[in-house]
Amino acid sequence: MHLEKEIAQQPGVIKRLLDEGWPATTAVAGAIGEFDPAYVCLAARGTSDNAAHYAQYMFGGMLRLPAMLATPSLHTVYESPPALRSALVIGISQSGQAEDVRAVLADANQQGALTLAITNFEDSPLAQTAQFHLPLLAEPELSVAATKTYSAQLTVIAMLTSALAESRDMRNELKSLPRLAMQALSLSEDIADWAERYRYCDRLVTLGRGYNYATACEISLKVKELTYIASEGYSEANFRHGPIAAVDRGHPVVLVSPHGKNLAAMVDMCERLEELGAESLVISNNSDLLKYGTQAMTIPSTPEWLSPILAVMPGQVFAMRQALARGYDVDKPRGLSKVTVTE
Amino acid sequence: MHLEKEIAQQPGVIKRLLDEGWPATTAVAGAIGEFDPAYVCLAARGTSDNAAHYAQYMFGGMLRLPAMLATPSLHTVYESPPALRSALVIGISQSGQAEDVRAVLADANQQGALTLAITNFEDSPLAQTAQFHLPLLAEPELSVAATKTYSAQLTVIAMLTSALAESRDMRNELKSLPRLAMQALSLSEDIADWAERYRYCDRLVTLGRGYNYATACEISLKVKELTYIASEGYSEANFRHGPIAAVDRGHPVVLVSPHGKNLAAMVDMCERLEELGAESLVISNNSDLLKYGTQAMTIPSTPEWLSPILAVMPGQVFAMRQALARGYDVDKPRGLSKVTVTE
Repeated sequence: MHLEKEIAQQPGVIKRLLDEGWPATTAVAGAIGEFDPAYVCLAARGTSDNAAHYAQYMFGGMLRLPAMLATPSLHTVYESPPALRSALVIGISQSGQAEDVRAVLADANQQGALTLAITNFEDSPLAQTAQFHLPLLAEPELSVAATKTYSAQLTVIAMLTSALAESRDMRNELKSLPRLAMQALSLSEDIADWAERYRYCDRLVTLGRGYNYATACEISLKVKELTYIASEGYSEANFRHGPIAAVDRGHPVVLVSPHGKNLAAMVDMCERLEELGAESLVISNNSDLLKYGTQAMTIPSTPEWLSPILAVMPGQVFAMRQALARGYDVDKPRGLSKVTVTE
Repeated sequence: MHLEKEIAQQPGVIKRLLDEGWPATTAVAGAIGEFDPAYVCLAARGTSDNAAHYAQYMFGGMLRLPAMLATPSLHTVYESPPALRSALVIGISQSGQAEDVRAVLADANQQGALTLAITNFEDSPLAQTAQFHLPLLAEPELSVAATKTYSAQLTVIAMLTSALAESRDMRNELKSLPRLAMQALSLSEDIADWAERYRYCDRLVTLGRGYNYATACEISLKVKELTYIASEGYSEANFRHGPIAAVDRGHPVVLVSPHGKNLAAMVDMCERLEELGAESLVISNNSDLLKYGTQAMTIPSTPEWLSPILAVMPGQVFAMRQALARGYDVDKPRGLSKVTVTE
């Protein structure tokens, strides 16, 4: 089973990035500093799009640099690319094969923007198109569902942000990540003991906010890809503006909320869900929040900006365990291939 | 039943905007032209967030002006607002009460950005905070599920874009909109004849791309709010990167695809769904695409950029008919109130 191995490889991949990735990261940060972008434009699809959400909060929250998600079809289908000349344009793709993502970077190059690719393949079309490339150093990922390349994308983004912030504190905090990732995975082992309870659940909602909005989206995607159930990820705030209507007695809701500035809102959401009779599955390092969970998935404590790299892990394990409980092939979900090229 | 009335009021609201809205629109467009923003930042929640998606494609595709969705929690929860000084910052909210949206505009004002509110209430906190305000002129909306204020938001965005483009063609094309909206609603009447087929469906996917990505998101939200089923909206491209795994025999999929540059990709998606045994419900003005649908929802022909204002209407009617078939209160979905304030 590739998926289980690749989930387990994550601490090693993160360690490799932190051991070998700083010279390239610092060089790219230098070029970005010189270019002095007015904003960042992120182009990505699927899991990589969730990594782009993380980048939005890192760049915005840590560097005050506004970051947008690209609209690739304006570059490809409509041939009417927005003017990105004052932007840093970043393409994120595990394979580096995403043609629409590549098209955004090609247009950005022509317009005089600064372009960067984050991929697992140095010789991929996307890496070759970008002016700069930061590799994921994750070795080939054989399972269709991305896991180690996702946490690697987040790690690269966190390293780049700390290099841009020239923050010794952030760089120091990153050092503990491989050890904490080991710990997060070992804390996730007991998910196997209770996963069967959800064998026949046919829908799931995952909530996060801020830095962990990305985590909510990624866990929901992993569950959907591997178990085919209706699985949706929301910002906790957007969820209140409509989708919460669909929650009734017994509806499982995963809440991703490490200790941080969103905690009060998440406690309030837990209480609201309790009133509705919903069933909460909580991913947190905070005991006040964990106590609301029918299932409590504990993660190690870190600064909030680092927590998404750990908080996704119990979600990956939960998705895998659900697929196994249902007898599905976890490495080759139906209807998907590892590389999807859209234009 | 407020909802049915408000759906029917849409052509009248659009007509009022086109009759009375141009002077304010032209004045705002003048101020924007003078400010010459590097990009646009859109702050919104729920249905208004879907209107913001439409604005992304209108500004990007018609004006080459990149547009991002704001990250309100960086302004409120994290108190670390991104630097938006070179941006046009637009807050969209039916009620104008959304506190997090207001906070984005307040920060933007302080930073020297240009701010605009689009709301239904001139004296709302959001309208009062923004330097400029464009009203929806939709009269009070009493149903919790927004319909006429959504098409009004799109109309305001379309008018603003054509004023910024100084395009006589666009302005002329807008003139036919009230008549076409009447036609779209009358073409939607037969949805009542076949809606019962979906009485027991418990999940739905809605796909669109480009200008109609917003439509897919909004129809999916309307269905979710009114029927509580698992209803998800996707860009057709992102859907191929994972979520399609969840589609099996009989799975209903709404495809929103008026004639336009995305048609070939949507025909390909219809064929893929046919292979999977899924059931397609097609909203289009193109007979090639409509023939794939178990249900064909025909809309009048328009330029692609105008089509989202019409294409949402059969979706609104479908959502209402589903709720009625299930015996739900269509004006007051459980767990929601008309004004949701998140911080």
